Amino acid sequence: MSTPTTPSVVLYISMSLDGYITTKDDDLGWLEMVNGTGEDYGYFEMKSRMGSYIVGRKTYDVVRNLCNGEFPAANDFDCYIITRQSIPNKENITFFNGDVADLIKELKAKSDKDIYCDGGGEVVRLLMDQNLIDEYIISIIPTILGDGKRLFLGEIGGINIEAISTTKYNSGLIQVHYKRNLKPKTN
Amino acid sequence: MSTPTTPSVVLYISMSLDGYITTKDDDLGWLEMVNGTGEDYGYFEMKSRMGSYIVGRKTYDVVRNLCNGEFPAANDFDCYIITRQSIPNKENITFFNGDVADLIKELKAKSDKDIYCDGGGEVVRLLMDQNLIDEYIISIIPTILGDGKRLFLGEIGGINIEAISTTKYNSGLIQVHYKRNLKPKTN
Repeated sequence: MSTPTTPSVVLYISMSLDGYITTKDDDLGWLEMVNGTGEDYGYFEMKSRMGSYIVGRKTYDVVRNLCNGEFPAANDFDCYIITRQSIPNKENITFFNGDVADLIKELKAKSDKDIYCDGGGEVVRLLMDQNLIDEYIISIIPTILGDGKRLFLGEIGGINIEAISTTKYNSGLIQVHYKRNLKPKTN
Repeated sequence: MSTPTTPSVVLYISMSLDGYITTKDDDLGWLEMVNGTGEDYGYFEMKSRMGSYIVGRKTYDVVRNLCNGEFPAANDFDCYIITRQSIPNKENITFFNGDVADLIKELKAKSDKDIYCDGGGEVVRLLMDQNLIDEYIISIIPTILGDGKRLFLGEIGGINIEAISTTKYNSGLIQVHYKRNLKPKTN
């Protein structure tokens, strides 16, 4: 059980087969179809690797609305909410409106634990635009939403990745796991 | 080796991890990264099940441009090119500008072999909008294109699916396989 020498930024997120992380009106009820089976889809192991948590302000608001104003991730992680606004910090919650590359550099320097990115699409694009995501762990929920808010918003350059594994769970959730590959892009 | 009693419409297609089937300028060179390994990713078995082939007119043109004016699928299948225009047919190639639901009904009635849909996004949306795709076999190429033409264009209703399997190949290609599930949608 060795600790990695350089912390990783891990995108650990669910999407529908057609690439949506939520409906247009931020309904997340469809995620329930894979819950209640006693399976945690690697979350416990993943959580134990993570020290900090990055999420966009809009996703933060959606979660708080679902959780009666609470933000459960703050009980487990040092949370950073990415926003363009200037918002006062709370306990374990920092509102960050600078360059995400600086934030990642700072987080990697201050802890050897990994950094959990939970979306949404705009923060994922900000991070990918500077190729700052080290691992992609995507849980494909067995449904086609047909429309909604996309995980990958486009309008960035290409990124080399390497497939690590794929797992189909009894619920029908298929998890795919990739790591960033820093070799020069040939395509 | 029994023949299925009702033919299936099978979407058998590749996309990047971020959901693109081609770059904005229709470059397909990035697909080469998974070729040349001797692995056919189930294509031979899939091809043997198929009698007809459906593709959009734009994708048809892209393929013909890549193949010096030839359309190789016409050597193997009864091909239907979905278009809004009225274009004279060729040997094994029918240009179809009617309702795709009528075409699928006709093809299912006339042969017990399956129907291969090869995209692009607009034809996939047309078929999905009427829930006409019976199987989704999607090969996720291990790359992030960053931008391009999407497989799933959105603006349709939700569709119930059931996961069948997932396979990671040595090249890093991860194939996911789903079938349509006709039970009432609960989410």
